[in-house]
Amino acid sequence: MSKLVLAINAGSSSLKFQLIEMPEERLISKGLIERIGLDDSVITIEANGEKFKDVKDIADHVEAVDIMLDSLIDHGVISDINDLDGTGHRVVHGGEAFPNSVYVTDEVEEKIDELSDLAPLHNPANLMGIRAFRKLLPELPHVAVFDTSFHQTMPQEAYMYSLPYNYYTDYGIRKYGFHGTSHKYVSRRAASLLDKPIEDLRLITCHIGNGASLAAVSGGESIDTSMGFTPLAGVTMGTRSGSIDPALVPYIMEKTGKNAAEVRYTLNKESGLLGLTGKSSDVRDVEKEAAGGCERSELALNVFARRIHGYIGAYAAHMSGTDAIVFTAGVGEHSASMRARILKGLEFMGVKLDPEKNDLVDDGEAIISTDDSAVKVLVIPTNEEVMIARDVIKYGNV
Amino acid sequence: MSKLVLAINAGSSSLKFQLIEMPEERLISKGLIERIGLDDSVITIEANGEKFKDVKDIADHVEAVDIMLDSLIDHGVISDINDLDGTGHRVVHGGEAFPNSVYVTDEVEEKIDELSDLAPLHNPANLMGIRAFRKLLPELPHVAVFDTSFHQTMPQEAYMYSLPYNYYTDYGIRKYGFHGTSHKYVSRRAASLLDKPIEDLRLITCHIGNGASLAAVSGGESIDTSMGFTPLAGVTMGTRSGSIDPALVPYIMEKTGKNAAEVRYTLNKESGLLGLTGKSSDVRDVEKEAAGGCERSELALNVFARRIHGYIGAYAAHMSGTDAIVFTAGVGEHSASMRARILKGLEFMGVKLDPEKNDLVDDGEAIISTDDSAVKVLVIPTNEEVMIARDVIKYGNV
Repeated sequence: MSKLVLAINAGSSSLKFQLIEMPEERLISKGLIERIGLDDSVITIEANGEKFKDVKDIADHVEAVDIMLDSLIDHGVISDINDLDGTGHRVVHGGEAFPNSVYVTDEVEEKIDELSDLAPLHNPANLMGIRAFRKLLPELPHVAVFDTSFHQTMPQEAYMYSLPYNYYTDYGIRKYGFHGTSHKYVSRRAASLLDKPIEDLRLITCHIGNGASLAAVSGGESIDTSMGFTPLAGVTMGTRSGSIDPALVPYIMEKTGKNAAEVRYTLNKESGLLGLTGKSSDVRDVEKEAAGGCERSELALNVFARRIHGYIGAYAAHMSGTDAIVFTAGVGEHSASMRARILKGLEFMGVKLDPEKNDLVDDGEAIISTDDSAVKVLVIPTNEEVMIARDVIKYGNV
Repeated sequence: MSKLVLAINAGSSSLKFQLIEMPEERLISKGLIERIGLDDSVITIEANGEKFKDVKDIADHVEAVDIMLDSLIDHGVISDINDLDGTGHRVVHGGEAFPNSVYVTDEVEEKIDELSDLAPLHNPANLMGIRAFRKLLPELPHVAVFDTSFHQTMPQEAYMYSLPYNYYTDYGIRKYGFHGTSHKYVSRRAASLLDKPIEDLRLITCHIGNGASLAAVSGGESIDTSMGFTPLAGVTMGTRSGSIDPALVPYIMEKTGKNAAEVRYTLNKESGLLGLTGKSSDVRDVEKEAAGGCERSELALNVFARRIHGYIGAYAAHMSGTDAIVFTAGVGEHSASMRARILKGLEFMGVKLDPEKNDLVDDGEAIISTDDSAVKVLVIPTNEEVMIARDVIKYGNV
């Protein structure tokens, strides 16, 4: 029998949801509540092919969830809250405590709260969502799904920094990695599209959106990923620097007079494509500028592509070769020219992009390598919500 | 006719020299003066197969050079300072001003001084050596040879950080790279040993000593290197962390109460193998401990090898393949087990290590891949002094 599951992504003043029918993985409704706790909160909901928008004051996440459930009923999506079978919640940081998704108990809530130290901007907000749903729907199973879980299979030599060992034991300083739900989803889809058991595949998954990370997925398990202790590390992103010489942090402080937190802000919000171009963090804009002859935009695109290119080489080395490279998320799914830029010069390792197939990708899944390419190249739209819904079924015993 | 050239490496309280006969590249004498400006300075000199040691107070670099020249005469190495044909000086930072070695003039001295901002511990000391020699031997050509020069051929997309663009124009923040003289020397030797024109080769040179860096050398030119704005970046080193999530700098400050300069000190002096093991920064010690069953030592070796392994993959990608991998410097030349650890799993890209040849390397140059290995693996003892001497001949018009 089909089950109805809510996949939730709660921010500090927002709540995103998708209602998914399982096991069909069919999207029934989705919506967004913004400006929670501020004046004029905005509720947007899509149901039965229509889009509804409403503005009212919403004091907190509990009220937001209440209004969300009411509007699902009002728009005839569900007849009653008893139609729901469970909820799943994106939580950014599971530390080492959560190598898998988990059925939420009081103890789990407490542990997520403790991990806020590692993700001060995200975990408390994610937790507000969980608490609101547990309060309003106490009989339902609620499952927490962590961005970090998928990467907990990394070997210790991949996740340890070369820092004083006690930084790991005392402060939890290690590589955690993020976007795990996305990397896991697209790696499973890739195996399915390639019609091979995931156990036999060495995949490099490239989640390239505003945030961007790569993962080396060997036999279905993440064995390395480009983000680190925080989502700042790794490749160039829209506004994030990715990895830089760490000695630059004190140097920038000395030169600019910024304190450490201000430099961290600059590295997170004023760097990446935005920093290099001085204009935009969006690959589409930068590609337009570059096509128009802007040299700094062309440079920014080349920097962006080169960092990813390097990780592909490194991860091929770590897995002793690769069977497929997978692109997902905004840029990965929609920029054919960026995919081509990234893959240029990888023929030596067996990658043959089919330029025509690459250009023809249109919002769906596609294999864009030539038929005789030893390494397959795929585009797979990510779907973290479906992954969350799957884990609600699995860990919520729905 | 043969020429006699001094290759000089001046530290803030030390002066190392080699007297080299060119073009034979024959070492005639070498020596070291330590504790300059402190009590009981120590002079060590090797000449005619004998080693001499003397202790006396030496006030400054001018006096040190004077004593050095006297002792070369006293020990019969030269009969007169007029026997000398030129001096070459290692200078750590040449910024973007010096893409090649340069004949030292007053303007060059001034520029090296200006670049002290980028290398505050090294350039002023290097300059003291240059000034002392120019004062005492004003008729001789003096040449400055920079650690950074060889990497000035990197394309812009390799050397630019994804930071606000004005950090580059205002503060000179970019990747410079170091160990250039060593990477250049071993890449030339590799071409010679492989009996191929360097223009046709894609080399990955691994300088692995206390400090460690890799370079991608394509057609004889460095197109990427693992160190960055400073020598802290890149791979795990004896006491240096290499690249870490830059957000860790503020996090470590918050957790430990250290200020930015103290964290920088920790990353440079208390991290790397020393940090991971808590015991030693020396690969030999760590290998001994690991062989004795110490798990943290085994971990440290695996972290160390994995970072280098990843760069090899990345640089192969950046050069669309590689023809040879070259190991040099303390660890690279002498640890067969570390070389094997680094190369493990690279068979997919054509690397076949010959374990016997690898084990038999003994202080000399060697090809340690199998005869049918598509990618050759070489061990080449570095010789920065010879490289400096070559540039004295070339740029000093000797």
